[in-house]
Amino acid sequence: MSDLKNKILSAINKDLVEIELALKNNLKASLDLTSQVAGHILFSGGKRFRPLLMILSARICGYKGNMDKTYSTIFEYLHAATLLHDDIIDGATLRRGKPVAHSIWGNSIAVLAGDFLLGRSLSISTETELPKVIKIITKITEEMSQGEIHQLTRIGDLDLTEEEYMEIIRRKTAVLMQGACWTGALIATASEKEEKALSEYGFNLGIAFQMTDDLLDYTSDTSILGKEIGADLKEGKLTLPVIYSLKEASSEDKTIMEKIITDKNFSFNDFKILIKLLEKYGGIEYTKKLASEHIEKAKKSILFFEPSETKELLLNMADYALIRKA
Amino acid sequence: MSDLKNKILSAINKDLVEIELALKNNLKASLDLTSQVAGHILFSGGKRFRPLLMILSARICGYKGNMDKTYSTIFEYLHAATLLHDDIIDGATLRRGKPVAHSIWGNSIAVLAGDFLLGRSLSISTETELPKVIKIITKITEEMSQGEIHQLTRIGDLDLTEEEYMEIIRRKTAVLMQGACWTGALIATASEKEEKALSEYGFNLGIAFQMTDDLLDYTSDTSILGKEIGADLKEGKLTLPVIYSLKEASSEDKTIMEKIITDKNFSFNDFKILIKLLEKYGGIEYTKKLASEHIEKAKKSILFFEPSETKELLLNMADYALIRKA
Repeated sequence: MSDLKNKILSAINKDLVEIELALKNNLKASLDLTSQVAGHILFSGGKRFRPLLMILSARICGYKGNMDKTYSTIFEYLHAATLLHDDIIDGATLRRGKPVAHSIWGNSIAVLAGDFLLGRSLSISTETELPKVIKIITKITEEMSQGEIHQLTRIGDLDLTEEEYMEIIRRKTAVLMQGACWTGALIATASEKEEKALSEYGFNLGIAFQMTDDLLDYTSDTSILGKEIGADLKEGKLTLPVIYSLKEASSEDKTIMEKIITDKNFSFNDFKILIKLLEKYGGIEYTKKLASEHIEKAKKSILFFEPSETKELLLNMADYALIRKA
Repeated sequence: MSDLKNKILSAINKDLVEIELALKNNLKASLDLTSQVAGHILFSGGKRFRPLLMILSARICGYKGNMDKTYSTIFEYLHAATLLHDDIIDGATLRRGKPVAHSIWGNSIAVLAGDFLLGRSLSISTETELPKVIKIITKITEEMSQGEIHQLTRIGDLDLTEEEYMEIIRRKTAVLMQGACWTGALIATASEKEEKALSEYGFNLGIAFQMTDDLLDYTSDTSILGKEIGADLKEGKLTLPVIYSLKEASSEDKTIMEKIITDKNFSFNDFKILIKLLEKYGGIEYTKKLASEHIEKAKKSILFFEPSETKELLLNMADYALIRKA
């Protein structure tokens, strides 16, 4: 484990414990099976990145209430809801090293448990009694499904552009992290400047977070990632490392890459050849650079806050989003 | 077509045209494929029962604004979202005589289009700027998924009780119609008495509506219903006509019924035998009686409103919910 990860974890330990409790408590009134399926996805080693973002954003804006843990579940429930549905869509078998929910309870229960978590998430947002928060959350649910549909309609499409890729990751990842930070500011009745800063912080962090995710599919290994590497490609999902390299490649190498990409049963050796080409044409490097630029933007937008442990943590979390290995 | 249906249709013709327009307009900003899939389920001959309930409830409380058609889409989108997901869950092939969305676009797109409609519906609810309305809608989304999960966990269970059945149909059908009528009252800033009356009207109408639906599965025929009769039973869904008859049957007849019910491939002849037994033990009659009682309750709760064409229509719609053939 990296030093940075250790440093962050020890600083947020108390928050994490309280988030776990809130995640459990806010499911209590539901049916047994619902809790069970929701619990399977919720308590399987998630990083709680989104609830933490909300809580720290509220804290840096001086939030003094005791509802932040409850409100933070909005973002983990929403995230878990999309994971439940995404795993069905992607035909995934593993998530964080464990069998996915639909492989245990079937697609129907997984769809409905996702719907429930979506509903639960939105219900909790209404408890804030803040119209702006509620609007942000409902907008996120729309955006995320649109992002997924967009991605799905471009499955296997070798002509996917960088612009489209950016639009897809904006919708499927960035708006949720943006919403988490923004909501944190709103429940703290922050100034407009603070609100805007945290919203930008979350957005850019989200973009970089997804880019790093997409990189890990080529640079990590299965045991650390908790799922197969190369999975995106197997599902026909073209991400930035590939998109960029395809654009830069010689026509000869482009043909080789396209052959591997369109072959649903590419071998491990094929995959290694592809990675070599992604390195050769700078797709890995370019994605790293872009992710890094977004992290710099994220950090820059909150620099004006007074020095504090919370500010330090938000800056550290931005760095961590970039260097994480899983 | 019955006289009552004709009478209702001619009175609401203008509203129906405006609802169709609102349903189209509020999808405009979405991706092509989303509109296409949403359009497939939305514009396939739905009765617009739920938006109409909202509009008429607002009108009887003196609503004078011009947002009722827009707000009414909340209830049709929410309804369509659950239909998209339900059809996947039930493995249905036909809906209103047309192939279901997932058989055309696949499960993934159908799941996501459902998620999108859910999100759209909730986004529109925030436009009312009425916290109570927003809470009602988010609560409905939770309740509906819980109702479906409850039903799913009892699939094929011969011990399902009448109480459980009532709880399931409350969640999966009644709360949405209740919410539509309640919202109508709220956007009209109705008195508390009116609000409560319309909420009760919608709730009881919803219960009766679902009971009638469940009856039609035994008493209608495929060409009128737009889907196979006996479909509930084939899916292992026990509804009131069966639950009641199983309780009343002699042990000999009970055995016959159970054999048919648990046989996933029961013949048309078996099905006819079952219907005879449902008639013999009063399951059909009992369900009709209970549905009729709920309709009487629904009508009674709005009797105090001044006589008007709108009141007449709400009373007629309640009667229609009971006698409809599809």
